[in-house]
Amino acid sequence: MSLEHLLKDHVTRLVGADLEACEAAIERELGSSVSLIREVGHYIAGAGGKRIRPILVLLSARLAGYRGPRALHLGCVVELLHTATLMHDDVVDGATLRRGHASANAKYGEDTSILVGDHFYSKSFALLVQDNDQPIMETLAHATISMTEAEVFQLEKKREGDLTEADYLRIITLKTATFISACCRIGALLGGANPAQVDALGAYGLNIGIAFQIVDDSLDFIADEAVLGKAIGTDLREGKRTLPLIAALDRATPTDREWILEVLHRRQPLAGEIGKVRRLVMQYDGISYALEQALAYAKAAKTHLTSFPDSDEKETLALISEYVVDRDR
Amino acid sequence: MSLEHLLKDHVTRLVGADLEACEAAIERELGSSVSLIREVGHYIAGAGGKRIRPILVLLSARLAGYRGPRALHLGCVVELLHTATLMHDDVVDGATLRRGHASANAKYGEDTSILVGDHFYSKSFALLVQDNDQPIMETLAHATISMTEAEVFQLEKKREGDLTEADYLRIITLKTATFISACCRIGALLGGANPAQVDALGAYGLNIGIAFQIVDDSLDFIADEAVLGKAIGTDLREGKRTLPLIAALDRATPTDREWILEVLHRRQPLAGEIGKVRRLVMQYDGISYALEQALAYAKAAKTHLTSFPDSDEKETLALISEYVVDRDR
Repeated sequence: MSLEHLLKDHVTRLVGADLEACEAAIERELGSSVSLIREVGHYIAGAGGKRIRPILVLLSARLAGYRGPRALHLGCVVELLHTATLMHDDVVDGATLRRGHASANAKYGEDTSILVGDHFYSKSFALLVQDNDQPIMETLAHATISMTEAEVFQLEKKREGDLTEADYLRIITLKTATFISACCRIGALLGGANPAQVDALGAYGLNIGIAFQIVDDSLDFIADEAVLGKAIGTDLREGKRTLPLIAALDRATPTDREWILEVLHRRQPLAGEIGKVRRLVMQYDGISYALEQALAYAKAAKTHLTSFPDSDEKETLALISEYVVDRDR
Repeated sequence: MSLEHLLKDHVTRLVGADLEACEAAIERELGSSVSLIREVGHYIAGAGGKRIRPILVLLSARLAGYRGPRALHLGCVVELLHTATLMHDDVVDGATLRRGHASANAKYGEDTSILVGDHFYSKSFALLVQDNDQPIMETLAHATISMTEAEVFQLEKKREGDLTEADYLRIITLKTATFISACCRIGALLGGANPAQVDALGAYGLNIGIAFQIVDDSLDFIADEAVLGKAIGTDLREGKRTLPLIAALDRATPTDREWILEVLHRRQPLAGEIGKVRRLVMQYDGISYALEQALAYAKAAKTHLTSFPDSDEKETLALISEYVVDRDR
């Protein structure tokens, strides 16, 4: 059995019913009396997604001893928020594909994606207020500030045309990992875990979040496009620098380095040039360096679970830390 | 003394200190460790604005008997939220001017406006959570859902190329008036007003909100550009239908009606054509019809204040209902 199937099996057994209810809640919340919202919502719900964030809320809550309906409600909150950020991200990146289908902005227009994204933000916020738990609301508010700040920092760095490994780590920590960490903290808070345990689950989430994003960025160089559901080399074509490239640039000869930077600064690089940059990144061990880093974060994540007694939930969270660095999409 | 000066005088006397503190809080919140956010925030804070929403929170709170720091904190919340919606609106509308200066999207790019707008949304939400009052959070959550839903509905109608007076009223009620109403409700809730009084201040706000927007839309036809701080005829050039136009179309001869619609459907109407549409709208009493409607809403707003005992605050809110329909910018 592959790791992916094993994990799916564990998740279904532990939180399958809640996840289905969460899925139904998401679909309900993506609806509206306004038909364009309904259409976009239906399109996005249909495209699916890994649902990593709700799964982490559900598993963390169970690990912390929570049994009740609030976890799936908050799972819906985080997934709606995630959907909203994806919609705005795709507009900013000019992305045309998402999860193997046309992105919402490509299909419905940028204006639609901006406004429907805002609407899903506000829905997420309203559901959170409905739950009305201040530490949980603050956790998510903090994550949202961090995420949006990182988005702008990323844009600023892109315009400056320079990005160090430290900048990259700052961005993915604030943008991806803080949110994933918040999902784990929320679960812990739901279960009334003590502060040390809340922090431990938060640290677990932060580390898998960083690992997850590094792998995502590496897949853009090496994945099978059909499995990934989107074209590879997208980041390069958009001039987006990620860890494999940064590492390769640090290791490249001055001549290769200069040539790569020249291609990246070009507005419309040729496909052959993008292909050559990819080969150079691999040749200079950019991918293996990035994946080693990801592996280290994933291992660190697992150590933060040690303070919890053994359980199916703990084992599943450990499996997730392995899966984030061992996946092909 | 003009109505505007009289009103300013009242506002300064009653809530001037709080408004200044609110202004300082807004400027502080528009700051960030990310320099692009700081730059955009400073630019927007410098451009000013009428601060109608914070003023309404402050005055309503005082009318309901509240004295304390939460009103200015919540004033900052609503102004940040308003700023975020304006930034996204300007991107969607392709607006190049705002308050007499280049719009943030024109100056910093659409991607910046989308992401910094999201950041201000999240800041507003974090400050709201910090205040942690559920009825107030729910009021604002409801208003935000309503606003964003109306934005999409407006986009949908624009694409369909048709907008009835009922559609228009639905849009401005959900988009502008619900938010202004929420500001008044928040003030009432802060003061611990009874439910009937909360509803009364909410109804006052809803009516001035509708009146305010109708006047805004009418100013686009008749204002002095230098006073207004932006070009007039902007809505027409963007193909946006507002009450003066809708009313004129209802009254026009079939030939004039057809010609106006033809101009509006054109991608790049000529300046002379826009001028002729404006003249036709006036000739068919579109402006006077719209302003009559606005006046009726403003009068209705004032009636909702009757249940409150006479006070400086009540008088000032009454002045605001007069000012929204008697202004040149």
